[in-house]
Formats: sequence, structure tokens, C-alpha cells
Amino acid sequence: MADEAKGIGLYGDSWRPDPVHEYWDPGAYHRPERELVEGRFAGAECVECHQGVTPGIVNGWRQSRHAKPAGAAAPVACDGCHGGDHQALRFPTPADCGACHDRQHGQFLEERRYGFPSHALAMERAVDAKHFVDKPKAEVASCLQCHSVATKCDSCHTRHAFSAAEARRPEACITCHSGPPHPDDETYFASAHGRRYLAEGAGWDWSKPLVKGNYPVPTCAYCHMREGRHQVADKAIWKFGIREVNPRTAENNVKRRRWIAVCADCHEPDQAKAWLAGLDDERKRAWAMLYEAEAILRDLRGDDLLHPAPGARPPYPLDWWEQYWPIARIGFYEGQASAFYNVSGIERDYFEMWYFDGLGAYKAAAHGAPDAVREGHDRLARSLERVRAEAASLRALGTAERAAGVRADPGPLWLRGPYTDLNRERN
Amino acid sequence: MADEAKGIGLYGDSWRPDPVHEYWDPGAYHRPERELVEGRFAGAECVECHQGVTPGIVNGWRQSRHAKPAGAAAPVACDGCHGGDHQALRFPTPADCGACHDRQHGQFLEERRYGFPSHALAMERAVDAKHFVDKPKAEVASCLQCHSVATKCDSCHTRHAFSAAEARRPEACITCHSGPPHPDDETYFASAHGRRYLAEGAGWDWSKPLVKGNYPVPTCAYCHMREGRHQVADKAIWKFGIREVNPRTAENNVKRRRWIAVCADCHEPDQAKAWLAGLDDERKRAWAMLYEAEAILRDLRGDDLLHPAPGARPPYPLDWWEQYWPIARIGFYEGQASAFYNVSGIERDYFEMWYFDGLGAYKAAAHGAPDAVREGHDRLARSLERVRAEAASLRALGTAERAAGVRADPGPLWLRGPYTDLNRERN
Amino acid sequence: MADEAKGIGLYGDSWRPDPVHEYWDPGAYHRPERELVEGRFAGAECVECHQGVTPGIVNGWRQSRHAKPAGAAAPVACDGCHGGDHQALRFPTPADCGACHDRQHGQFLEERRYGFPSHALAMERAVDAKHFVDKPKAEVASCLQCHSVATKCDSCHTRHAFSAAEARRPEACITCHSGPPHPDDETYFASAHGRRYLAEGAGWDWSKPLVKGNYPVPTCAYCHMREGRHQVADKAIWKFGIREVNPRTAENNVKRRRWIAVCADCHEPDQAKAWLAGLDDERKRAWAMLYEAEAILRDLRGDDLLHPAPGARPPYPLDWWEQYWPIARIGFYEGQASAFYNVSGIERDYFEMWYFDGLGAYKAAAHGAPDAVREGHDRLARSLERVRAEAASLRALGTAERAAGVRADPGPLWLRGPYTDLNRERN
Repeated sequence: MADEAKGIGLYGDSWRPDPVHEYWDPGAYHRPERELVEGRFAGAECVECHQGVTPGIVNGWRQSRHAKPAGAAAPVACDGCHGGDHQALRFPTPADCGACHDRQHGQFLEERRYGFPSHALAMERAVDAKHFVDKPKAEVASCLQCHSVATKCDSCHTRHAFSAAEARRPEACITCHSGPPHPDDETYFASAHGRRYLAEGAGWDWSKPLVKGNYPVPTCAYCHMREGRHQVADKAIWKFGIREVNPRTAENNVKRRRWIAVCADCHEPDQAKAWLAGLDDERKRAWAMLYEAEAILRDLRGDDLLHPAPGARPPYPLDWWEQYWPIARIGFYEGQASAFYNVSGIERDYFEMWYFDGLGAYKAAAHGAPDAVREGHDRLARSLERVRAEAASLRALGTAERAAGVRADPGPLWLRGPYTDLNRERN
Repeated sequence: MADEAKGIGLYGDSWRPDPVHEYWDPGAYHRPERELVEGRFAGAECVECHQGVTPGIVNGWRQSRHAKPAGAAAPVACDGCHGGDHQALRFPTPADCGACHDRQHGQFLEERRYGFPSHALAMERAVDAKHFVDKPKAEVASCLQCHSVATKCDSCHTRHAFSAAEARRPEACITCHSGPPHPDDETYFASAHGRRYLAEGAGWDWSKPLVKGNYPVPTCAYCHMREGRHQVADKAIWKFGIREVNPRTAENNVKRRRWIAVCADCHEPDQAKAWLAGLDDERKRAWAMLYEAEAILRDLRGDDLLHPAPGARPPYPLDWWEQYWPIARIGFYEGQASAFYNVSGIERDYFEMWYFDGLGAYKAAAHGAPDAVREGHDRLARSLERVRAEAASLRALGTAERAAGVRADPGPLWLRGPYTDLNRERN
Repeated sequence: MADEAKGIGLYGDSWRPDPVHEYWDPGAYHRPERELVEGRFAGAECVECHQGVTPGIVNGWRQSRHAKPAGAAAPVACDGCHGGDHQALRFPTPADCGACHDRQHGQFLEERRYGFPSHALAMERAVDAKHFVDKPKAEVASCLQCHSVATKCDSCHTRHAFSAAEARRPEACITCHSGPPHPDDETYFASAHGRRYLAEGAGWDWSKPLVKGNYPVPTCAYCHMREGRHQVADKAIWKFGIREVNPRTAENNVKRRRWIAVCADCHEPDQAKAWLAGLDDERKRAWAMLYEAEAILRDLRGDDLLHPAPGARPPYPLDWWEQYWPIARIGFYEGQASAFYNVSGIERDYFEMWYFDGLGAYKAAAHGAPDAVREGHDRLARSLERVRAEAASLRALGTAERAAGVRADPGPLWLRGPYTDLNRERN
């Protein structure tokens, strides 16, 4: 598609990166700019000039451990990470940072072993999704902003202070972990933990490591990156919550004990057990509602009552062959991409019930935000009622149509749709 | 239902508490754990050991007035509240705290005189609601977390600092007072009061009492718990907003003068009067829309156009006898429980209009959040339009059905529903 | 309509201000109160008495530059702004503040040259809108609270500290700039800029001016009021986002260079260019969806399939003559007021798609809130699907009605509606 540039990943031949992608995945796309300034410079020279041109980033560096390393170590100045040739400056990748911070980088890479979801696999997850390729790049540019957590370290440690203290605070996580379907932000700050952080956190000493006794309440990193470990996967049971899991497998019982050990920094282990059992119960009840809705959809599909019928939808461009061999997918389990777009109203309602209502309730239950648990289950119950009512209407309509010997034609509106033929025209 | 444990309250024989309930209502459910450690310990011994095991809670205590009481008073250490026998530790109840803090506890209990809503009655309000009993405990565990404000003092004064300063800040209230239908959190922080707190509150001296001149803007407790009084009911006019009241009764005029006296700490009394009159006008207009919607529903019921018909719904398990004597309830006034679940779509829309749109606008108007007032009234107007349009559709459908001599059968979907036969199977 | 008071603006004869309006537009409505206290007082006397009556506002003044001016200037005390006659106290207007702060006031007035939207024109914008006049004042009181930014300076510089430092912080803006359709609040705080402010801003020195190097991240005023200039219009390209613009006109290219110069305080100019190009792409894609929805509505109107038909709606009171010459307006471009109320369901859905979904995505893209961009486009796509599905239903219904020779009568529900005959009865 693109002549001069192409994407990365499985479908890299089918899409072309936007210029801004260079900043989200510098390892893949960054090309040195031919800057106005020529020459090779050492750190002190960089600082001298940039103190006037971009003083903010120089101030950040001055406050950093890079500028004032512990002990007798030499400072790491601008050229240490960006190179000294002003015509060939680099944007550092995690591997560049890992050259010094090998423990953290190694822990980070270790996450890959645990599969999706994963910080270390986030960029691959984005660009290897068919709907990423098929959607206009104007919409998916924002995807890369969060998924760049895999490809640059300053998602969490903002340049140029690169402070560990910053990343200990919950705000380091919330640029990405907020909004439906992952309201970690909203549910943490609505919890008793979060509200105490909000009230008093500005006065705490964030230079202290995340170990017990140092903070009155935990932050995201305290529990999920225990003692600063750059790997959040080894305790994950429900993960993003998009599937039901059996929380009581032998493996998950081991993980559970790891969670209880975290909680026991402050709470009785029995309280942690009861809390986590409550989370599992919440999930069980939520999934019961989701399964009921999904069963309704399957029955409708079986009776050919969905408009447009799952097999009659326009395929995604990358799935163009499906127009010859249509696949009647509904819901998440039968193909994620099918759940989002070009579906009948009742299927979209189910999708939102699953992705927004259900996951909102999950995060609320996990983080201890009681109002948001209630709101999530209110919404689940309301969505299930809506799905049931819509199904009743579709069945009534179907009966009437059969009696009259007619069949509503959804018309040409459904012959094409968003994210179908779009990428045939433009990026 | 349960053999070894049963709930409290009116319907206590019909439900069984989850293990986590012990932490929300320790007076009702806490049973001492047989801990690993045996023996009797005095405070200094507790601290010595727990400094290593759970240093965070010990640090909290060290900063508290309990550890450093004013004057010559003796410290209150761990055993003072929990007892000294490690095999029979107590979780303190409000009565335990009241043994020393009798003024605050007395004010708190005084709230019971004012009826619902009430902090002091909150736990009874939760467990004596039929839908609490009938719903799966996995969903209502979160209810108890907020309603535990009646049964433990560390909802607002987080253990183990139990700080008055903490409870003066708005974050002490927002774990519970947030989200629809009571967005006190969102509307306070969106107000001119709240945004100045957000910007500057970290630098204020929170050890000062809540009296005029001590803070640039009020917080929740400043207005609702004037001078730290542990009773929020004596000025309450609109309360939670779920009913229309006459704001100009003799009693409410007395209450109004109390409000104006609070505002007059900083504002002209005339401005406070105008503001409160504006709130009453806002409520009047909101209720006019709600009554219009409710009248539409009543007319539909009269013409038998609701599906499922109010009398044909599955009763709540606790109301099992209603299957023999059905009650055709709609809306809040005819029975709260009927408004939530197993209702027709238009009834649910009315419920949300009342409970979410209307109450959101109310809290916004009361707390001075102009965007949220606009949003609430936009939503009320939009919901009313939707209710009117749905009613028109139901009437058109009814006319067509009568003409054709048919009547749509909602089918077996409605024979059972959420929160009906659920508790017959499990807790 | 009103005997003793009337509104300001084009339609001032048709509406009557509520008492609280005096506080939002003192220049138009404030009348001195006959206070209990008589006499003329100088500043020191005011302070002596008000230190006891309203100490909070006196404390604010004491901390202000007014009380402690730089150099040898004389303090500005209470009587300097309010006058000394206690029976004829003034509420200061922007012109009063401008008597000393002429540079800031002049910049502020300069905004008027740029047209709507504008802080300086905000009050006119409110009261000269037909729907402001026609709606009950109980609902539009909240409008004036934000639009009073034109008529009093303490919207941003809270009385009585009137601090520049306060207005440098984002909270100064968010009482007004929050919620749909202008979630500047939510999207800034969800951005990497905002979250770093949230985590660390309490410790920054806000007495510093908003120039490069002084702050680690920008706040609202840093970018929009560069170097403290009280005029936000000269860089505005997309403005509130309610229309599509050509972002590449010669004029807009000049404005773009101004934006890039702001970003270049910290970022590479190339990054700023790529980011702003991404914003334009996002807008282009959003408007493509909006135009598609609008085209569907136009086709439905052409085929007389909207209920109520655009020409059959009750006119606004101020447009009473339209009942004799109905105008079949749909959507924003054909008349803003027509888009909000008394419209068919599909038109209202389009309105919300445009006003809430689209503008939310815009602000998210502009402020760098990736989750909110995704959410906005999810909602746009979902709304477009809903519009398409509703259109298909309306067409199917129309076909059936034509076949049967009938036409659904929306009934008397539509003969009157919210914001139509309302103001004929009361204010």
C-alpha cells in the first residue's frame, strides 16, 4: 500500500504508519531528522544550548539520577542516550534503557512469557489486530499512544526526569488505564485506598521504595509491581476480565496466595481471602448474566432473526475472502472483531454489556469501589433486560413476517459499513 | 436458609451473610479468629511485634492522638480497642469508640431521630430492603461496604490514624457519596468550591477545626457537619432527592435559615437565599418532567399497554404470595422494588430518568456544578422525549393489535427474571 | 413579561432575570442592598468588622497583592472596589478591575474581535439564544454561572485573593470547561501532561510566570494563554469543534505555526506537526461519520419518514410565527435550536452523536487523552450504526404503512412539548 514506508507486524504490508507513529514506536519507525544544527556534541554542550532552547527538559534532567548519580558514577547526559551526532539523533528504546537498567528491563521482558494482556507485548497486540489494520489510521493513532508502553520507557517514567518516584504514584498508570473498558483509574480513586491517597498523597515521601510500612495505602504499583518488580503478570488471575476463568485451578490458587501476601502487609489474611472470594462471586454472577444474553443471541441466530444476519455482513477488508465463505460469528468467543461493528443492534448491546458494563463492575470489585460495583451490576441487569426485550420484539416481528409471508430487507445500508471498504480508499 | 449463620434484621432468617460481611458489620458477625499466636499482650508488646508484621498500621497509630494524647492522658494502645487476648481479638464498633468519644457518638446516634436517609440507620436500611435479601450476595456485598458507615467508625476516620483532619477533607466522604444516583463527589469537585480545594487544598492546615475563617472554601463536612457535629440531618430539606418535598413548610423554613447561616460565613445572606431559591426552582422543574413521565406510564397501564403488564411480573421471592394476588405497581411511589427489575423498557427508562438524571441534576444544583446541572436537565428532557416516543409506539402497536385481533405474547422470557427465583437456588 | 425587572440583550423584553442573576452579571442587575449597617467606611474599618463577620474573605484579601502590593504602591482595600457607602456597595465588573489591570482587561476585550466562542462575548451568547429565553429560568440559571466569565473576573481569580497563581492551575478553568460537550477537564487530566500535574503539581512554585522552563508540563493557561495573555482566540483553529473547518487555510496555517511554537517549548517541532496533523485526521474521520448520519436524516425527511415531521413540530415561543410558516429544519446547520428538543428519536440521536460523541473525541485528541479518543470514536461508530438501524426501521415501517394505506399518527403528545408553550405560563 505504501511506497516509502510500511507498518510492522503480521499485516505490515497492508498498512502505512502515520508520521506520529515514529514517536510511539521509535525502534520501528524513527529516522534521524536532518536538523538545522550540525556537528557532534558532548553532554555539557547539549545542556548549554538546550538550557535556552528547551529549558524544561534540561531542568527535568538536572533533577534526575542521570544528572546526579549515586556514589562515584559518572552522570548520563544527553549524548549518552541520544548519541552525539546532531544529524543522527536517536530516540531511546527499552533496549537502550536496558543497557544500564538491565534488571528492570529483564523483568519487563519476562512478562512476554505470560501471554496477553502484557505491557511487553502491547505493541504487537495493537498492530497485529485486523481491526487496527482495517480502521482508518486517524482513529487508531490513539491506540498506539497507550500500546507504546512496550516500545518506550517514558510512558511511565516521564522524560527527562525518568523518576522512580513518579512511577510509584497512581497517576503514572492512568493515562492508559482509564475509561471503559478498563476503569482502573476511576475505581482506584473511588476506593478507600485511592481517596486517602487523594487527600494526603501530596505529603508522602515518594523516594521510599514500595515496601510495607512506607506508605499508608497502596498505589497501583505497590500491589501490581510489588517491591518495584517490572512485571505485573505473575499474580494475574482474572487479567483484563474479558473471559471467564476458573479462579480455583491449582495455578490460580498459587497466584491467590501471592495476592493475599500483598494484602497482608496491612490487613488480616482472612480479610483478604474473603475479599478475593467476593470478587470471584461477583464475576460468577456477572458471567451468568453475560451467558444468558449470549444464549439469547445464539437462539436468535439459529432462528435467523438477526438483521443483518451474521453471515450477511460485509467482511473486514483483511477478511475479503469471507464474502465467498461467510462466517456467522456473534459475540466475543466466535471472533473478537465481529463483536464491534456492522452488527445488529442487539449484538452491539451485548457487546457493550460485556465490554463496558461487565468490565467496569469487575474493576470496581477488584479495587474496592462500592458505588461502581453497584453501577456496573445495575447496568448489566439493565442491559440484560434490554437484550431480552429486543429479542422478544425480534421474535414477534419474525412471527408476524412469517404469517404475512414477507421478510424485512435491511436494504443497502448494510452492504457496506464502517471499517469495511474504508481502507480500500485511504489509510 | 443457612445453618451455621444467619443475617440480621427483619428478614434475617431468609439470607446468609458472606464471610466478608464480618468486616462491614463486626458487631453483628465478627467472631474471634483462632490466630496462630496465643497469649495476652499489652499495647507495647503488640506494637513491638506488629512493627515488623504490619508496620503500616503501627505507623498510623503512632501518628494518631491515640498514641500521643493531649495533656497527661494515657495513650490508647492496641489492646485498648481490640482487647489483649490474641485468641479473642475484637473489631471495634461505634459503641466501643463512643466509650471515649461520647459526644461524637451521641450526635451520630441522634441522626436516628430524623429517619431515612441517615448514616446511623444505614445498615438497617440495607439489610431490611427486600431487594437486598433477594439479590445474590455477590452483588450486594458492595452495598454493605458503604452502609457500614453505621457500624464502624473507620469509614471516615481511616484506621489506624483515626484522624479528624482526614475526615475534614472531602475525600473522606467520596468512597460512598459518588456515582449515580448521588454524585456528591463529582458535583462538589466540579464546583468553584471544589476546584479551589483541588488546586490548593494540599497546602492548607487541616488540623484546624471547621469554623469560619479557617479555610478558603468549605468541604463536605464544613457545611454538612458544621463545627464538626456528627449529625448531618438537622438542616436536610431535600435529602437524597428521591421525593418531591414542599421546601417552604414552616419546618423547612427553619432548616433554610440554618443553611443560610452556613453560607453567610463567606457570602451575603441574600446570595444564599437566591441560590437556595434557584435550587428549589430547579427541583420544581425537574419534578414537573418526572410527573409528566409518570402520568404517561399510568395511562399506559390503564390501557393495558405495558409488556410485561405490571400485574404479570414474577414477584420477588420474599413477595411470593403476590403470584396469587398480583399488584400492578409502577414507579417509585407504588413500591420502590418494582421500579428496578423485571419491568418493561419504558418503565426502566422512567426509573433511570428519576434515579439518575433527576438526582444528578439535583446534586449539581445543590453543590454549584453548572455543567452538571445542564447535563442533568439535558438528560431529563431527553429521557422524557424518549418516554413519550415509546408511549406513542406502544399505543400505535396496541391499536394495530386490536385491529388485527392479536396480542403480542412476550413469551417465556418474562416468566422468570433477575432477582426473582434466584435466591431459591443459592445465596 | 416582568414588571419590575427585565433581561438584557436582544430578547430582554421577553424574559425576566431570577434574583441569583444579580451575582452572575452584576453590571446588568446588581442593585445595592439596604444593609443593616449604615455609614461610610474606609478599608481599615471594613477589615476590622469583617474580620469577625466573614473572616474567610478577609484572610483571602490579606494574602493578596491588593493587601501587600509590590514596591511603594498603596494597598487596595475593600472600599477601593466596593465603594465606602455601606448602603450602596458595588459588585465589581471587569471594567472596575480594568481600571488598574488595563493590560489584562484590554487583552480580554480583544477576544471580541474573533467572534464566538469567546470569553468576552459569553454572556451575550447565553442571553441572546432563543432557547435561553424560552427555557424555564430554573434550568438556565446554571448557564449564566459559566457564561459570567464575561461579566466578572472572579470566575478564574477567586475572590478575595484574586491570585494569578490560582489561575495558572488547570482547576481555574474546569468549573466551566468540563462535562459533555466540552470535556477539557477530563481530557487534560487524562493526558500525560495532566497526570503529571496531578501527581506533582502540589509541589510546584506557582508564583512563576507561564514561560518555558518554569513548569515540567503545561496547564490550560500555559498553552491557551501563552505568557499570561488574557486572550485565547488568536491560535484557535477548531475552536469548540461544532463545525468542520478547513484546517489548512492560509490563516489557519499561521495559527498552526503559533501552536507549534508553543509545543516547541518542550517538544521537537516535527512532533508537534505530526500531532496536530493527527488531530486534523481525527476530525476528518469524525466529520465523515457525522455527514453520513446527517445525509440519512435528510433522506428520511425527503421521504417524509420522520415523526414528528420537522415541519410539524411546535415552534419555540419566540418563533411563534413558525406555526403559520413551518420550517422543516434538521440538525445543527439548519438551526441549532431545532436540534435539541421536540424532535424525533433519530434526530435526537444524531444531535447527541454530534454534540457529545464527536466533541468528546475532539477534545481528547486535542489534549492527548488516548482512551477518550477511542471511547469517542467507539461512540461515534455506535451512534452511526444506531442511526442507520433506526433509518432502516423507519423505512420498513413506511413501506408497510404505504402498503396498508395507513399513516401512524404520533398523537397529541407532539402537539406541545418541552420548551414550547412553557414560557407562556411562567418564567
